[in-house]
Amino acid sequence: MSVPGARGTGSEAADIAAVARRAGVSTATVSRALRGLPSVSEPTRARVLAAARDLDYVTSPAASRLASGQTRSIGVVAPYLGRWFFGQVLSGAEEVLRAAGYDVLLYALPDDAARADFFGRLPLRRRVDGVLVLTLPVDEAEVDALRGLNVPVGSVGVPGSGISCIGIDDRAAARTAVTHLVNLGHAGIALIGGGPSEPIHFTVPNDRLAGYRTAMADAGLPVPTGYEADGAFTYAGGEAAMAGLLALPDPPTAVFAQSDEMAMGALRAIRRAGLRCPEDISVIGFDDHELAELVELTTIAQPVAEQGRRAAQALLARIAGAEVVDQQLPTRLVLRSTTSPPRRARR
Amino acid sequence: MSVPGARGTGSEAADIAAVARRAGVSTATVSRALRGLPSVSEPTRARVLAAARDLDYVTSPAASRLASGQTRSIGVVAPYLGRWFFGQVLSGAEEVLRAAGYDVLLYALPDDAARADFFGRLPLRRRVDGVLVLTLPVDEAEVDALRGLNVPVGSVGVPGSGISCIGIDDRAAARTAVTHLVNLGHAGIALIGGGPSEPIHFTVPNDRLAGYRTAMADAGLPVPTGYEADGAFTYAGGEAAMAGLLALPDPPTAVFAQSDEMAMGALRAIRRAGLRCPEDISVIGFDDHELAELVELTTIAQPVAEQGRRAAQALLARIAGAEVVDQQLPTRLVLRSTTSPPRRARR
Repeated sequence: MSVPGARGTGSEAADIAAVARRAGVSTATVSRALRGLPSVSEPTRARVLAAARDLDYVTSPAASRLASGQTRSIGVVAPYLGRWFFGQVLSGAEEVLRAAGYDVLLYALPDDAARADFFGRLPLRRRVDGVLVLTLPVDEAEVDALRGLNVPVGSVGVPGSGISCIGIDDRAAARTAVTHLVNLGHAGIALIGGGPSEPIHFTVPNDRLAGYRTAMADAGLPVPTGYEADGAFTYAGGEAAMAGLLALPDPPTAVFAQSDEMAMGALRAIRRAGLRCPEDISVIGFDDHELAELVELTTIAQPVAEQGRRAAQALLARIAGAEVVDQQLPTRLVLRSTTSPPRRARR
Repeated sequence: MSVPGARGTGSEAADIAAVARRAGVSTATVSRALRGLPSVSEPTRARVLAAARDLDYVTSPAASRLASGQTRSIGVVAPYLGRWFFGQVLSGAEEVLRAAGYDVLLYALPDDAARADFFGRLPLRRRVDGVLVLTLPVDEAEVDALRGLNVPVGSVGVPGSGISCIGIDDRAAARTAVTHLVNLGHAGIALIGGGPSEPIHFTVPNDRLAGYRTAMADAGLPVPTGYEADGAFTYAGGEAAMAGLLALPDPPTAVFAQSDEMAMGALRAIRRAGLRCPEDISVIGFDDHELAELVELTTIAQPVAEQGRRAAQALLARIAGAEVVDQQLPTRLVLRSTTSPPRRARR
């Protein structure tokens, strides 16, 4: 490894003693001032910074940031990078941050080990002016750790806990999806969602699950054993979950999948089982994925990249000292060709 | 903005003078040693670092990195974040970098303005130990700018120019795709690709275009005016390009799309025009997108996340001082249901 000085152009030859002489203080005071320690008065600090600037003493971005206390960087934390939803949200957030001149320090925390490592060593400490959490499951201790960074923390889909939040009403949207199936005449309606043991603040799957249960209860419909399947929020997981539902003694006539990718996996399982959608079984998804239209998937549309943009804007506003309020963006039912009345009802 | 010291715990109270006393050198030497300037001998530098460590003098990650000359960060630059290919590549690269304890500084450069800004101010200077370029169009001046960072630069899909490269043989793979259509009996074969004016080193669309032209020439087939359409590497762009091809006086009987997302857009345009695929027109894509299987798309499969993983591994090896060689990963033709002989040939 080379050292920073070895990469430089030689312009950083100015000595701390020269800065001290110019500012009329001791070298120890220069050091304290440049390190931002509170024991230096503001006028002295300003004089030292001016002298350092005049002498081209502060020569690296990291040193400049140390001196100014600003990093012009935002930490972005997401559970996954390779899934459609997160790519869209990240893209929207990055667009806003880049336009505002902020760099992005990116962390994916796809499993417990990565999460434990991240919250254990907190690599964002003093490296960012704010943190954006993208629908990451965070528990109370993790929220405390983020608060301990002493910078604003914003989120997509992590309400409460002092973290500002842009999101949608997942519970109401899920209820809309299930009620659509109820209104078509379905009675056996299953769910394909996330795992049963998600951490406390990963509200998205839990809220959509609650919306499903509320809609079923409102319609007086039972939720038979096995009807709440785990599709792990992936295409492959949705396919496996649907295969499991079709193997039940009394399979459902309709399925609400908590994401379009899981819904598309379900469509594949239905086809592989020699069944037709919607003739044999109806499927409704959630997202309005770019490719949902191609497979004629009925779904709940949510603005995805827009949530990333809004969350980044809100975070920048908080960094600038403004108060921001949580925002819920609208969702809507998009009717296509994968839902219809059950065969029993049509006979 | 608060300053770093104000966020701290008070443990950074040790003075530079104390470090100097303990190391038996002047404060100016401490300063020079911690800034990595070459004017300090290695034994002295080691003594200063030990004294600073003992006294808990270096208290922030940025200061530590300044002192060590290591950033433990990698700059990752990609044209887009919200498209499937880039999400997969980024996910694979981030996985390897995270496992090795590196942070990711992420930059999307989707347009000329973003690229000009990035290469103009080079925000990666002294902030990263290496740079990973993900199939970004870079011209000679931009390559020079990256070299000027004096850290290893690796890439997915940017061969030559001293940038190490993991990629595929785009030209041969495209030729395989088009030859498949030729072998089915098609003579009017169109291309849906990227724009005609891509910068010099954005080799992917140009290489796939060259593969198309070579296969057509080998088969003695003409490429009529309008048969090389611009689908902008998006679903919507592929749909528009296909609509344009169908409106030609002599439309093609088969299309090679340079990405699955464009191919899926083409499928939608075909359906909207009241035509059937493959009965009326054959389509072959490129990628083997996760959802290609669902729409039964014939395509060229490439290992996508694996290219990100390999590129990150190669970059880390170079940072550790190893020599690495460019790697080409294999592709293969995946036959599904969107290609068949043209109707003329079947009659």
